[in-house]
Amino acid sequence: MHKLAVVAIGGNAVNRPSEPPTAENMLKHLRETMKYLVDLAEEYDLIITHGNGPQVGNLLIQQDMAKDVVPPFPIDVNDAQTQGSLGYMIVQSLHNTLIEKGMKKKICAMITQIVVDENDPAFENPTKPIGPFYNEEEAKRLACEKGWVVVEDAGRGWRRVVPSPKPLDVIELDAIEYLVRSGAIVVAAGGGGIPVVKDAKGHLKGVEAVIDKDRASSLLARLLKADLFLILTGVEKVYLNYKKPGQKPIDVMTVEEAKKYLREGHFHKGSMLPKVEAGIDFVEEVGNTFIITSMEKIKEALGGRTGTRIVQ
Amino acid sequence: MHKLAVVAIGGNAVNRPSEPPTAENMLKHLRETMKYLVDLAEEYDLIITHGNGPQVGNLLIQQDMAKDVVPPFPIDVNDAQTQGSLGYMIVQSLHNTLIEKGMKKKICAMITQIVVDENDPAFENPTKPIGPFYNEEEAKRLACEKGWVVVEDAGRGWRRVVPSPKPLDVIELDAIEYLVRSGAIVVAAGGGGIPVVKDAKGHLKGVEAVIDKDRASSLLARLLKADLFLILTGVEKVYLNYKKPGQKPIDVMTVEEAKKYLREGHFHKGSMLPKVEAGIDFVEEVGNTFIITSMEKIKEALGGRTGTRIVQ
Repeated sequence: MHKLAVVAIGGNAVNRPSEPPTAENMLKHLRETMKYLVDLAEEYDLIITHGNGPQVGNLLIQQDMAKDVVPPFPIDVNDAQTQGSLGYMIVQSLHNTLIEKGMKKKICAMITQIVVDENDPAFENPTKPIGPFYNEEEAKRLACEKGWVVVEDAGRGWRRVVPSPKPLDVIELDAIEYLVRSGAIVVAAGGGGIPVVKDAKGHLKGVEAVIDKDRASSLLARLLKADLFLILTGVEKVYLNYKKPGQKPIDVMTVEEAKKYLREGHFHKGSMLPKVEAGIDFVEEVGNTFIITSMEKIKEALGGRTGTRIVQ
Repeated sequence: MHKLAVVAIGGNAVNRPSEPPTAENMLKHLRETMKYLVDLAEEYDLIITHGNGPQVGNLLIQQDMAKDVVPPFPIDVNDAQTQGSLGYMIVQSLHNTLIEKGMKKKICAMITQIVVDENDPAFENPTKPIGPFYNEEEAKRLACEKGWVVVEDAGRGWRRVVPSPKPLDVIELDAIEYLVRSGAIVVAAGGGGIPVVKDAKGHLKGVEAVIDKDRASSLLARLLKADLFLILTGVEKVYLNYKKPGQKPIDVMTVEEAKKYLREGHFHKGSMLPKVEAGIDFVEEVGNTFIITSMEKIKEALGGRTGTRIVQ
């Protein structure tokens, strides 16, 4: 049996904020990303996960502008839509890259539901900004009308915030494991998975929330006891005092050190913080290799020459 | 090994034109549909396929109304988005229905790319109306600007038409077969599949087209030599002279009879015609059971007491 790797690709693997989010641009970046990932597929059974922040935001804008003609979907369905579009683009880019390398593998993207607890405190305290900006009046009207929580977002206008609950279980886990262990490359848990709650009998129901993709990837890596959990991002290493005086790259940190740095506030919410937390959870529970690095540096990072590792 | 069934559900399994296409309504209808399908899953390995006409039309409207803010995706990406949203809703409805019945099975929805020939004559002669209605002036401007083909649609306004090429191969076939043969229920080839063309080296590229879902389902049933290919629709049987004098239900027709009725124009384009063609192709190539009926009548139809069969 091959070793198993879970690899979370970052937003910059899909598109850059400086470029319009056309399918053409997204495919261009994904083709580039997949060049770095296929090397991994020679050595590892591979699960690829991805975010969906900008894509789900765009869907919300489109839904909002057409709301008098087409009823908007709730966020769980929007998450599913982005699993479709991004899953397709990743699978196709991967297929074309494998051909270039003369490799042949099954590849597929699977719609993934992830269970969260309906009593998760995140539902009492929504924090994840999502979708279009509104003016104050409109935001407050929407808050009344739809029961949304809205907040003023750093002087840029008002936005809806949604809960970001903790992922607890992966509904499609068996199918994902079965396929990846047969040698397939599986794209799964896109956008952090579609958040669902489970009642006492086991019935599922979608909820209006967004699961952090690094936390969802960590859950998948833990449930499958992955040999390698790799989070790809825009930088080669994690830093202490990032972009501040005393900035210092981290090569290796123990779980204890990582927790201390977290408490000291070294890692940004919405950026490095969830990645470090995802790594801590994985290393504590599974104890296998965890690395944060950039896609360009995968090889060097696996060779121990760059990237940031968290160890027991 | 269980017998294998490919079941194509119709638009009325997802929603009714009389009801707004909210996620709530769609889930309500899908739950109803799945009650009829799970009985099949006791006897058969099951692949479920579905259309996406109304859903992709709504995405095009949303994209169009927001086009100054968010660049619209091409149709292949929209198809992928509907595979995500409908795949999710079907999988979740199925999961909840299985629980009611005390059954346990892996269930998953897989993003599916289907190969078409870039020289398919359909590309020279687009016929499938899609997306919003425009007035003549705007339609003609869009035709110039985007290279669309537009037509006047039965007095209701102008619409874009896209090619509906013949499906030739299923990229994810191995993964679908592997999973379904392990006892999973697999939702695949949604919306007729995402249409892609293949170059000499095997590289894939999405194309702006829509594959008929009955033809795509037939391809899947043929490639997997399904024991049963079932097309569910709004009526219990196929009719000669449907809604005309001399209307007559068909219980069984041979391939030769079916071809004769096609030539005589008994079956409506966009409704029964592609279903009968899909059945002819399947029966000619595989020779196994093919039935058209309504979801409420699956059991009776399998027992030979209703539905329309095509036989060799």
